[in-house]
Amino acid sequence: MNRISVAIIGASGYTGGELLRLLLFHPNVEVKQITSNSYYGKLAHKAHPNLRKVTSLKFCSVDELEKVDTLFLCTPHGESMKRIDEYKNFAERIIDLSGDFRLNDVNEFEKWYKQTHLKPEMLNKFIYGIPELHREEMRNATYISSAGCNATTTILGLYPLYKNGLAETARTVVEVKVGSSEGGKKASFASHHPERSGAMRSYKPTAHRHAAEIIQELSFGKKIEIHFSATSVDMIRGTMATSHIFLKENLSEKDIWKIYREAYKDEPFIRIIKEREGNYRYPEPKLCIGTNYCDIGFEKDPHSNRLVVISAIDNLMKGAAGQALQAFNIMHGLNETTGLEFPGLHPI
Amino acid sequence: MNRISVAIIGASGYTGGELLRLLLFHPNVEVKQITSNSYYGKLAHKAHPNLRKVTSLKFCSVDELEKVDTLFLCTPHGESMKRIDEYKNFAERIIDLSGDFRLNDVNEFEKWYKQTHLKPEMLNKFIYGIPELHREEMRNATYISSAGCNATTTILGLYPLYKNGLAETARTVVEVKVGSSEGGKKASFASHHPERSGAMRSYKPTAHRHAAEIIQELSFGKKIEIHFSATSVDMIRGTMATSHIFLKENLSEKDIWKIYREAYKDEPFIRIIKEREGNYRYPEPKLCIGTNYCDIGFEKDPHSNRLVVISAIDNLMKGAAGQALQAFNIMHGLNETTGLEFPGLHPI
Amino acid sequence: MNRISVAIIGASGYTGGELLRLLLFHPNVEVKQITSNSYYGKLAHKAHPNLRKVTSLKFCSVDELEKVDTLFLCTPHGESMKRIDEYKNFAERIIDLSGDFRLNDVNEFEKWYKQTHLKPEMLNKFIYGIPELHREEMRNATYISSAGCNATTTILGLYPLYKNGLAETARTVVEVKVGSSEGGKKASFASHHPERSGAMRSYKPTAHRHAAEIIQELSFGKKIEIHFSATSVDMIRGTMATSHIFLKENLSEKDIWKIYREAYKDEPFIRIIKEREGNYRYPEPKLCIGTNYCDIGFEKDPHSNRLVVISAIDNLMKGAAGQALQAFNIMHGLNETTGLEFPGLHPI
Amino acid sequence: MNRISVAIIGASGYTGGELLRLLLFHPNVEVKQITSNSYYGKLAHKAHPNLRKVTSLKFCSVDELEKVDTLFLCTPHGESMKRIDEYKNFAERIIDLSGDFRLNDVNEFEKWYKQTHLKPEMLNKFIYGIPELHREEMRNATYISSAGCNATTTILGLYPLYKNGLAETARTVVEVKVGSSEGGKKASFASHHPERSGAMRSYKPTAHRHAAEIIQELSFGKKIEIHFSATSVDMIRGTMATSHIFLKENLSEKDIWKIYREAYKDEPFIRIIKEREGNYRYPEPKLCIGTNYCDIGFEKDPHSNRLVVISAIDNLMKGAAGQALQAFNIMHGLNETTGLEFPGLHPI
Repeated sequence: MNRISVAIIGASGYTGGELLRLLLFHPNVEVKQITSNSYYGKLAHKAHPNLRKVTSLKFCSVDELEKVDTLFLCTPHGESMKRIDEYKNFAERIIDLSGDFRLNDVNEFEKWYKQTHLKPEMLNKFIYGIPELHREEMRNATYISSAGCNATTTILGLYPLYKNGLAETARTVVEVKVGSSEGGKKASFASHHPERSGAMRSYKPTAHRHAAEIIQELSFGKKIEIHFSATSVDMIRGTMATSHIFLKENLSEKDIWKIYREAYKDEPFIRIIKEREGNYRYPEPKLCIGTNYCDIGFEKDPHSNRLVVISAIDNLMKGAAGQALQAFNIMHGLNETTGLEFPGLHPI
Repeated sequence: MNRISVAIIGASGYTGGELLRLLLFHPNVEVKQITSNSYYGKLAHKAHPNLRKVTSLKFCSVDELEKVDTLFLCTPHGESMKRIDEYKNFAERIIDLSGDFRLNDVNEFEKWYKQTHLKPEMLNKFIYGIPELHREEMRNATYISSAGCNATTTILGLYPLYKNGLAETARTVVEVKVGSSEGGKKASFASHHPERSGAMRSYKPTAHRHAAEIIQELSFGKKIEIHFSATSVDMIRGTMATSHIFLKENLSEKDIWKIYREAYKDEPFIRIIKEREGNYRYPEPKLCIGTNYCDIGFEKDPHSNRLVVISAIDNLMKGAAGQALQAFNIMHGLNETTGLEFPGLHPI
Repeated sequence: MNRISVAIIGASGYTGGELLRLLLFHPNVEVKQITSNSYYGKLAHKAHPNLRKVTSLKFCSVDELEKVDTLFLCTPHGESMKRIDEYKNFAERIIDLSGDFRLNDVNEFEKWYKQTHLKPEMLNKFIYGIPELHREEMRNATYISSAGCNATTTILGLYPLYKNGLAETARTVVEVKVGSSEGGKKASFASHHPERSGAMRSYKPTAHRHAAEIIQELSFGKKIEIHFSATSVDMIRGTMATSHIFLKENLSEKDIWKIYREAYKDEPFIRIIKEREGNYRYPEPKLCIGTNYCDIGFEKDPHSNRLVVISAIDNLMKGAAGQALQAFNIMHGLNETTGLEFPGLHPI
Repeated sequence: MNRISVAIIGASGYTGGELLRLLLFHPNVEVKQITSNSYYGKLAHKAHPNLRKVTSLKFCSVDELEKVDTLFLCTPHGESMKRIDEYKNFAERIIDLSGDFRLNDVNEFEKWYKQTHLKPEMLNKFIYGIPELHREEMRNATYISSAGCNATTTILGLYPLYKNGLAETARTVVEVKVGSSEGGKKASFASHHPERSGAMRSYKPTAHRHAAEIIQELSFGKKIEIHFSATSVDMIRGTMATSHIFLKENLSEKDIWKIYREAYKDEPFIRIIKEREGNYRYPEPKLCIGTNYCDIGFEKDPHSNRLVVISAIDNLMKGAAGQALQAFNIMHGLNETTGLEFPGLHPI
């Protein structure tokens, strides 16, 4: 079989680098080009030191782009919608990892992103990129908008409950804890080690953009409220959502287990974690590092109808590059797990 | 003025060590004795290396105890109620840092601690140890039960709202993020560095004992629900509570600011943190390390009636030894901040 | 081709778990049995949470062992020499990851290990397990003794210099910085998170056992001194050696570069790292995490004949399980890199 | 007694902030002015969040400076020598915390700093700022040049040996491990959290400027070589030197203990750390955080004449602001420990 040719726009950032790593080891893919402004002309490993001795690819500019089967966009938010018409000439299929085409409704986009959308007519051409929710639509998709990392963690944790109408619609509170790689590669005083190391920083207590995606994907036709907050903690990779859902009915932990099992039993990248004892009773982002897994656990409050759901991912993998590759595999009729087999390390 | 004589029972643990450090530098105190089973006969600095060159006190046993003005109990939960009658012979005043006498209602104790209380008749003799709530009662107190670290963080963050009846009573969700020193000095596989470092562990998603204290102190005669969860993160000292309160009325951030200012304007150890920009917009536990401060900030959700309150402390200081000393100062008519002036370090 | 059958003795520790992970993904291997006393009868993922959803193997006891092609020993130091005769019945080939058979000379063993060797007649039957030094002997080996992690880091950094007789024999000083996973899985007060996190602990300033291996492998018939110290730092995986060598002749950095290039140009797992600028100028253990690479860099002191050599590995990979698998591949005539292709993650 | 008036030039950086904190709590000092370009007109706590509620001082510009008793210079290297004549008008006494006036010999300065000295005639007017070596000269000093952090750690560790002529002069190797606060407050890609956290970076394997100070202070008229390297590790505060000295004579650990004790027995800020067992056998920077201590330990190699000396400090305290204040106290005839009593925290 011929290899599928791909290129990555914006390949020198953390997400682009992670995607490049995955694609270089994918048996059915040939990476043709990688673009970068800041690393133009340099070897890939100058930006991504883990790729030393792995590839001799060099960064080129968008102007030098040639046609490929699939184009991955890893540029900062706002760039994809600016240049999407141009990109469509280079590839039949596009997977955008930015936030530009995640929301179906232009009004929601403008409400949460506080800017005008430059290509509103394209919004409904993109499939929202969580395979566990949109696998069938992906099979014939040409455009996929890869989901936000915090949104992915939260949505996968809550999906079985909302799909089955089990949660009170106005009361869910979600707090995600995020690592520093979510902020990207650009240094600032906020990311300066003496300031950021050991930090526990409430960086977005309200009005986080990913809340819009979460509401979109969990609504199922109803009006729902998701009260979302994000806190930065001292880790590099990893996102963990602690979600507090108030159940309409009094369900036992066994009932809840069945609901999650039913929803996810065939999913290759979902693990339900619920041990009676020990260090690994609940999901932890550090156990997901380098993997495409989303680990999900829960505990029912014995004193109320609250259910606490814990979900964890590696934000650069299931929250970005890994999930984009999973979608790519589906789109191309490949085995969904190809190139995503790494099980993670322990201890790490 | 004569120095006030004190002794510490259980002085070789982290809380006992922190209290010893504070008391050794307190101008009005003389530390007479410190007890420990595991370090019996050893110099204090064998357990607390920061006290090398500071003191030549040695640990003794409880059997060797002599009378003092005030006795501090830093023993594990369950010990104080076992031996309280004995301790009463050694000191007129007792400050207990364990959980044994924090709850006024024996039924609540037995519900949350899952054990029988051995001295229920003493429960109402102890003043709950948060000076910001119980200063006047402390002035003439003989027994003070120092508050739990997670409870202190949460209560101080929510007190102005609950006192003024501003929160919907059944909807508050609180998530505290805690460091490893909360678990005490005893090593286990859960605290083993390769397992615990980099961890983000949902150690008590529901049914945490400190929830009982929080409900007790914030009820003001009403039935309230506080949905509390605790997550361990990779830090040693520090507790931060992110509380999600749903306001009954539509208050602006300016209104909320006034409410907090009114409640805390004369408090020496409360700082309201709310900057427009920069790294220090909200409270962070690392800025409280070594201090007795509780830093409090908030953000009103523009899309709902949710108010997010962030509060942070050093769990060994305002959450344990520092707050106990603050109570001691009040009890003895001393300046409340004596011995608690250290402003913390930056960066740290 | 038939898969090579293997078993791991002592598979519930960190090294055993890492080896199990690698072997499970090796296309030419079938893992038949894994033994553990403490996890007897339990699923592999109870000890190694990263293997959840990867394998349904359970731990058995040594008594239940069946014949395999190759046996890996991951037991604590001292165990292999006790039971080696027994193990020889179960497999033609044995790879021992402990320190029992690393030293050729029983006197050296007893000098550094302070104990009597129980099987001195077996010492010269084991090939010392660094492929870059002993590849040819490994091709027909039946017994391989996998090298120590600190020894591997140091030896690979210094080998080209000593092989070529370029270093003054009595002056080399080596300081390795090591992570907490080197200490194994057993919790202690030394590994208790509040004590170990943020630590910089001089745990073995002199007389470290690995010094004996280093001297053995770098002597080339001469008497040499290697002044070795080990310091624990706050990381989980990773070993870095900073070696200070005093050159007999005045060599330029270009000369040194050629010497290293000549020695290692065909080595799949050695990378020479020397950039003029940026964050990746020298080797760093964090860039080796999860990989089998040993990264090596150097700088010549402009004010003296000192050469500083920096070498870094993942102690559980190139320092243990990865290197053992590399040796296994050589022993069995397989491609040396099979199962060891993971390039590591960035950032991490 | 009247308070001594002081001002700090360059008070918005980490060193300036630490010094400001100490001076604000010093009973004999009044801080008159603090200057900053970047924080001009702002409250001190905007730069130093630990000073919130502690001071209402605002940053001014150098142009607004008024006369004080003592001026502290916390500006970047190269600034002091540019403006020293100007500063002399504002204060009789100056303590410079930069590197400009540490070296007595202009040739050495130009060799190590690779720049021309603008005020060579002032070099011998400054007393080198380590009180343990230059206390008597400080008593009547007008100008003090506070020592470098790495130099302080190394010099204090080696001083008793060199003063007594016990070390082979050409063989000492020193490796310091340093935290990120040493790099100052300016953010860069090197200090970007995803890059710097977990790092073990050989940032200056040779030719570090502090080597010049070390050689100057330890020479005692002989030509000596100190082979110095610096490695960045994942901590914020703290410097630890591991020094390998080759003894001329065969001294026992008891002999060495006596030599250190003799040298430092009256020093308030030197602690000799040498325990037989436990976590606190050797100095650790984390035990010095916030204190002015230099902790020193050692181990004699049983296999050679090597002595390994370990010394640790808080780089912002004994390595900068704390040591500057200690010198200030001596200069003004105050008790040397005033304002420097904080014993540090444990655990931290």
